[in-house]
Amino acid sequence: MQHVPSVPDEFETSDPRRYRIFLLDLLGVMAYGELSAFERLSSDARFSPTLNDRATLGQRAVAEFSHYELIAAHLGSLGADAQEIMGPFVASIDAFHDRTRPADWYESIMKAYVIDAISADFYLALSRHLDPQTQRVISEVQVTEAQSDALMNRLKDALADHPRLSSRLALWGRRLVGEALTQAQRLGIERAFLEGLIGNPQDSEDTDHVAKLFASLTRAHSRRMNLLGLTA
Amino acid sequence: MQHVPSVPDEFETSDPRRYRIFLLDLLGVMAYGELSAFERLSSDARFSPTLNDRATLGQRAVAEFSHYELIAAHLGSLGADAQEIMGPFVASIDAFHDRTRPADWYESIMKAYVIDAISADFYLALSRHLDPQTQRVISEVQVTEAQSDALMNRLKDALADHPRLSSRLALWGRRLVGEALTQAQRLGIERAFLEGLIGNPQDSEDTDHVAKLFASLTRAHSRRMNLLGLTA
Repeated sequence: MQHVPSVPDEFETSDPRRYRIFLLDLLGVMAYGELSAFERLSSDARFSPTLNDRATLGQRAVAEFSHYELIAAHLGSLGADAQEIMGPFVASIDAFHDRTRPADWYESIMKAYVIDAISADFYLALSRHLDPQTQRVISEVQVTEAQSDALMNRLKDALADHPRLSSRLALWGRRLVGEALTQAQRLGIERAFLEGLIGNPQDSEDTDHVAKLFASLTRAHSRRMNLLGLTA
Repeated sequence: MQHVPSVPDEFETSDPRRYRIFLLDLLGVMAYGELSAFERLSSDARFSPTLNDRATLGQRAVAEFSHYELIAAHLGSLGADAQEIMGPFVASIDAFHDRTRPADWYESIMKAYVIDAISADFYLALSRHLDPQTQRVISEVQVTEAQSDALMNRLKDALADHPRLSSRLALWGRRLVGEALTQAQRLGIERAFLEGLIGNPQDSEDTDHVAKLFASLTRAHSRRMNLLGLTA
C-alpha cells in the first residue's frame, strides 16, 4: 500500500487551524533567524580586513534585515504580531549563534555563506507544502545568486591568499552544518514543523521523508564546500 | 572693514584643487561615520528590551548604511575610491566610538539621537559652502524627521517608565556632545575642513565664525535635550 504524506492544499484546507499554527511558527523562526543574522553579521563586519569587505558584509546584513521586514509584514497580513510570534524562538536561535561564534572575519563570512544557503534550501523544501502567499514570501527572502556568489568569490580569494585557512574553514563548515541540522531537527521536533508539513515522525515512512530531506540538505552543502575546494 | 570669509563658489572655482581635497576629506569623514554608526547601532540592537525595539534600531542602522552607500557613490562619481578616502579617518572615529561606548540600550539610542542630530547640523552648516551635487547628497543622507521623532518618542517613553534614567541620560548627553564637538574641532584642525570652508583659524574673525558654528550646534543640542525633559 502506497503511503501518501500530508500534502499542502490538503493540509491547509483540511485542518486550517493546525495549518495556521505551523505557518506562524515557521514564519516566526524565519523572522527571528533573519533579524538575528542581521545583527550578528553587521557586528562582525567591523572585523573585516578591508573597508570594502566591511561594506560587502554590511550589504549582506542589510539584505537580511529587509528579509526580516518582509516576513514581519507577511505576519502582519495574517493578523499576527511578529514580536509575539518570534518570542518562542529567541532563546534557541541565540543559543545557536552562541555555539557558532566566528573566531574571525573569515569564519564570519563562511557562516553567512553556509547558513544562508542551507536555510534557504530548508525553507524552499518546505515551501511547496505551503499556501501561495507564503511561497511568494519565501522566494523573496532568498539571498540572490549574485549575493551568494559575492561571498563565495571572497572566500575563494581568501583561501588562495591564505592556504592555511583551508583546514580551519573546512572544519568550521562541518561544525556549522552540524549545528544547523541539529537546530532544524530540534525545532522540527519541538514545534512539529516537519511532522505537520512533511509527515509524522511516529510513522516510519514519514521519518524516512524527514531523513531524505536532511540528506538532500547535506548533499547540497557538500557541493558548496567542493566549490570552495574544501572537504565537506 | 567688513570681513568676508571664503564662500562656496568663490572657493570652489578660485582654488579647485584645494576645494577637492576639502571635499574628499569631508565625504570621507561622513562615509566612515555612517558605516561605523551602522555597525555600532546594529550590534547594540541585540540588547534592546523588546524585539520591536530591536527592529526599530535595526531600521535606523539600515538607514545609516544606505547613507554610507550614497556617499560612497558620490565619491565614485568624483573619481575617488571610498575605501581610500575613508582610510585616514578610521582611527579617530573608532576612538570616538570607544570613548562613547553605551552602557546599555538606552544609552545606545540616546547616542544615535544625539550624534545623528548634531552631525546633521554640522554637515548642513558646511553644506552651503559646497557645490550643488554635494549639497544634494548631504540633504539626502539626513535622518528624516520621522526617524528622529521615533527615537525621541522611544526615549520619552523610557524616561517616563524609568524616572531614574533622567540623571544618567542627561549626563550621558553632555558627555556625548562634548566628545562630538571635540572630535569635530580636532578633525577641523587636523584636516583643515573648517579653515577651508568657513575661514582661517589664524584669523581672529574667522575663529569667531568657527566659534559661532560650535555655539549654534550646542544650542540646537540643548533644545533637543529640553524636548526630552533633560538638562543639557
